[in-house]
Amino acid sequence: MATIKDVAKAAGVSVATVSRVINKSPKASTSSIDAVTKAMNELGYRPNAAARALVSQSTQTIGVLVSDVSDPFFGTLVKAVDTVAHDNGKHVLIGNGYHSEEGERQAIELLINNRCDALVIHSKALSDQELIEFANEAKGMVLINRHIPEIAQRCISLDNFKGAYLATEFLIRNGHKNIACIASNHPIEDVKQRIDGYKCALADNNISLSEDYVDYGAPSLEGGEQAMTNLLTKSIPITGVVGYNDYMAAGALSTLDENGIPAPDEISIVGFDDGLIARYVKPRLTTVRYPIAMMAEKAALLALQLSRSEAIDPDISTRYSPTMVKRESVKTIV
Amino acid sequence: MATIKDVAKAAGVSVATVSRVINKSPKASTSSIDAVTKAMNELGYRPNAAARALVSQSTQTIGVLVSDVSDPFFGTLVKAVDTVAHDNGKHVLIGNGYHSEEGERQAIELLINNRCDALVIHSKALSDQELIEFANEAKGMVLINRHIPEIAQRCISLDNFKGAYLATEFLIRNGHKNIACIASNHPIEDVKQRIDGYKCALADNNISLSEDYVDYGAPSLEGGEQAMTNLLTKSIPITGVVGYNDYMAAGALSTLDENGIPAPDEISIVGFDDGLIARYVKPRLTTVRYPIAMMAEKAALLALQLSRSEAIDPDISTRYSPTMVKRESVKTIV
Repeated sequence: MATIKDVAKAAGVSVATVSRVINKSPKASTSSIDAVTKAMNELGYRPNAAARALVSQSTQTIGVLVSDVSDPFFGTLVKAVDTVAHDNGKHVLIGNGYHSEEGERQAIELLINNRCDALVIHSKALSDQELIEFANEAKGMVLINRHIPEIAQRCISLDNFKGAYLATEFLIRNGHKNIACIASNHPIEDVKQRIDGYKCALADNNISLSEDYVDYGAPSLEGGEQAMTNLLTKSIPITGVVGYNDYMAAGALSTLDENGIPAPDEISIVGFDDGLIARYVKPRLTTVRYPIAMMAEKAALLALQLSRSEAIDPDISTRYSPTMVKRESVKTIV
Repeated sequence: MATIKDVAKAAGVSVATVSRVINKSPKASTSSIDAVTKAMNELGYRPNAAARALVSQSTQTIGVLVSDVSDPFFGTLVKAVDTVAHDNGKHVLIGNGYHSEEGERQAIELLINNRCDALVIHSKALSDQELIEFANEAKGMVLINRHIPEIAQRCISLDNFKGAYLATEFLIRNGHKNIACIASNHPIEDVKQRIDGYKCALADNNISLSEDYVDYGAPSLEGGEQAMTNLLTKSIPITGVVGYNDYMAAGALSTLDENGIPAPDEISIVGFDDGLIARYVKPRLTTVRYPIAMMAEKAALLALQLSRSEAIDPDISTRYSPTMVKRESVKTIV
């Protein structure tokens, strides 16, 4: 097998020059790059990656914290950050917080300890104060899906209130009045914001409903089944349901199906997220689009800017708007 | 705010001892750990993560290469590796190959350059020879969903042939004879292995069908719709379909629905993967379980063993078996 010395000899340059070409040093001249590349190809030489690793001193990483990477919502987030990383010659170190305070804390500390230049953090369990302290420590840290007023320019968030308002209003515009809300039982701000959006849309349209119309469950297929079962059990007249996310909406559809209640003919459902499964359930979900890929891309770019101490445009938009995606799970009634 | 000196003073130890406790040095005594922990809590001291990073020299990372982390199949793989990493005080650096040869090559080189101790690599585009060379270079590298005879003990793979055989045989046992196969048009070994499994099950049951019964598409919802449309267009009598994966099976269901052909009443469908969407489509998919989490866990543990130059049990099982998951998309016919 050819060695680096063979390459140097064939290219008519020094070993140090070959090394510079391999490690993409800015000091390598165009002519030496051409000669070394030609010699490497002719000799079938492959540089030893482990040796190269010793030369490269920078970690060149963007750290990402998500709740659970096996959920495609977070997979999409990680992919978007990875795309930005790749475009900038960097790569991604991931941490999973698994919805726990201690899990999130440990993961952020690990990412900082690993000298990530930039950080995109999805944290729901840690307090504002603790995240502010982390942000003070790590200048390239950006929060996603979270809004903290003190560090607002480093938070990329979604207008959850508006999303639930849109979903509820969409049902109202389609003739619905008896609209239930299936909410998550996780103690995070998104839940309150979305319930508020639902209630505000009802109030703005002079619709008054009891608290019975709101039910809760885990933000999953099973949680949606549970909450829909609870709503049916209460025997309240419902024609439309606003789901906390697509999983819960799918669970509601499943419960309706098991109970012989056709959707959307008798009950219409709106999801939230426009995630992978929205196109797979039947009827295909009319839902609220959560532009997570777009937001994650923005967060990664912002984190890189901050890590390089670049000035941030104070007018930058950090609050993203959800939009309606119309499919087949809502019926117009008269 | 308390400093490391304040902690040392309160604990009655030296600053170096506090540093050892913070950095979990094995040299820290139990009594000093207790004293320092107590002092840190009392003073509300939070060690500066950036400073700690300077002390820690090891990258302590497991590198993972997947095709696309936004696909929950790969998200589940990454999560399983992350769980093993976490249990071993390590974390995960990810690369995405995006189904391209150059993408996979670059990602592996980056992971090696970043001194990952262990590597779990899902590569479909690179040649056996190139992967063997990488494996020779990186002693902690394990391949997943790939079998290369020369490095068999470092390959964790699935018996694709058996999976498709099981799916086809399941339809046959349920009375089906006219069984079509919807295959992926990606040029990877899995496709050939699964078509072979399908054909072998037919032959073993004395069923002879023309090549018309096999059709191709991208391994996605849209590809499944396309392939099912092609099958319907050929006007061949079909009562059962073996899908390349759950996405294609879902696409086939969607096409049947659009054409007013009830599933499973007129046509039964079997998926492959038992991925996230299998429980969301209607009818819920009877499918072949791909134990990706179990395989990824095994691959990560094996990669860590190899990275520590530990002896590997030569009788270790590296070939995993798929199993049938029975749901609602297959009807028994007589």
